[in-house]
Amino acid sequence: MTIKITNKLFLFIWIKHLSRMIIRATLGCMKLADAVTLLGKGGPFRHLATMARNNNFFFRQLFDSDSSTYTYLLGDTSSKEAVLIDPVIEHAERDATLIKDLGFKLVYSMNTHMHADHITGTGKLKSLLPGSKSVIGKASGAKADIHLVDGDIVKFGSHQLLASATPGHTNGCFTYISHEQCMAFTGDALLIRGCGRTDFQEGSSQTLYKSVHERIFTLPDHFTLYPAHDYKGLTATSVGEEKKYNPRLTKSLEEFVKIMDNLNLPYPRKIDESIPANRVCGLFLNKTLYIHNTLKR
Amino acid sequence: MTIKITNKLFLFIWIKHLSRMIIRATLGCMKLADAVTLLGKGGPFRHLATMARNNNFFFRQLFDSDSSTYTYLLGDTSSKEAVLIDPVIEHAERDATLIKDLGFKLVYSMNTHMHADHITGTGKLKSLLPGSKSVIGKASGAKADIHLVDGDIVKFGSHQLLASATPGHTNGCFTYISHEQCMAFTGDALLIRGCGRTDFQEGSSQTLYKSVHERIFTLPDHFTLYPAHDYKGLTATSVGEEKKYNPRLTKSLEEFVKIMDNLNLPYPRKIDESIPANRVCGLFLNKTLYIHNTLKR
Repeated sequence: MTIKITNKLFLFIWIKHLSRMIIRATLGCMKLADAVTLLGKGGPFRHLATMARNNNFFFRQLFDSDSSTYTYLLGDTSSKEAVLIDPVIEHAERDATLIKDLGFKLVYSMNTHMHADHITGTGKLKSLLPGSKSVIGKASGAKADIHLVDGDIVKFGSHQLLASATPGHTNGCFTYISHEQCMAFTGDALLIRGCGRTDFQEGSSQTLYKSVHERIFTLPDHFTLYPAHDYKGLTATSVGEEKKYNPRLTKSLEEFVKIMDNLNLPYPRKIDESIPANRVCGLFLNKTLYIHNTLKR
Repeated sequence: MTIKITNKLFLFIWIKHLSRMIIRATLGCMKLADAVTLLGKGGPFRHLATMARNNNFFFRQLFDSDSSTYTYLLGDTSSKEAVLIDPVIEHAERDATLIKDLGFKLVYSMNTHMHADHITGTGKLKSLLPGSKSVIGKASGAKADIHLVDGDIVKFGSHQLLASATPGHTNGCFTYISHEQCMAFTGDALLIRGCGRTDFQEGSSQTLYKSVHERIFTLPDHFTLYPAHDYKGLTATSVGEEKKYNPRLTKSLEEFVKIMDNLNLPYPRKIDESIPANRVCGLFLNKTLYIHNTLKR
């Protein structure tokens, strides 16, 4: 069969190009940002919500009101593999129930660092959801099934998190980055309009400043940032917002160090029980910690 | 120019079909669900995170730890118009600052109902962000700039919320639905694995059961539900989850009524100050409410 296709050929090329662009936009957030730049209008924060969630990506934020800690559940709804970031021991049953309700198989329960303000739920979750493994940065000095070093990739189903070393609050602090979903879990390195303190454990304000500026502020402005804590009822922020409004980290290094040196914060309420417990995934034998005692293996 | 195009014609038709499907998937969540059904694998919750956020849609959840109330900021990043659902008076400054930081213009501060557990921030926000209007259901009997009736549409930029009447906790309860974003704000009609109490104001467990089953459980399973409160650190749920796991609303009407009749809940802590204040957008002249007194107009 032969027909004239001059117009059709143009249309064919145009549709092929358009469909490629849309497929790229659908599959990757960076690509979507490109597409939006081509197609869209808006101010500097127009990308804030442009999260091209893959259709098999699941995300839910959880909260511990006692220590104001955020826990994050991320899953692959096709393979059913899931990871939990910064679980809190008092909510291990809640988290395990949710994971089971949703039909997920927890592969990793991860910490962004060795916390000083709550006891991690990673050890207890290993009991509640057998087969899951605990994960923490090697430099934390804490016991875990898997120790991460800078640049490691944590995979769950078709998704992955890049472990980016962001020390300063502690030596073993990591920010877990999903480039695909345009999100990063910053632990205590960067909080919403704030940052983690640097006056205990291996705290260093110089190191923290470097980490945030080199590893978090270099991410695209539209990336959503999820911290380990918030004390004012905020749940998330973005790279663009923090680069513009963070009252500490928008300052020079010298000013930042001065601010951090003069915070005069109280002694952390739970540090004496948290640090020893978190060295062993929260499963610390202690008369005052009966709940953990019963789970010790 | 004439060439043989038998194969190209097939390819052309295929790409045209594929690009149409992807465009539909990108533009509308309902359409995405269709696409995922065609393309994807997974269990009953595979759609949980399939939110095809339009690229100019902004969303952020906020929290009041005292009353465990969630406030929601929704915006159009192109037109910069935004709405706030269920603001709390103690956080009005926080919310106004965030809205200004993000470059939004607040058009409506809305209540899902006349709350009995906290004082609304809508009146105070009108002072902090001049030009914004307060919105509540007409059947609430509360003062506001705009009174909604069932089926009303609330527009902000290119986005909109459908006001769906879901009485039962109170007469004036509304669920605000974004079909485009596959999300609904259920107020106290449906909470995560629970529901609002029906033993004060105009509470009716029969009416609540009907509202949830007819107006919320009829939404697609993958729609994310955002309640006015959660007391266990959960931040969201989905229609599918609640239809399967809600311990009250999965029961028969008779069992539900029995459960609600036997909750034996304490007298609401803040009801005596909240109801009179919320009748007038939170701006209630009362010696014990100095903060509101100063804002009364």
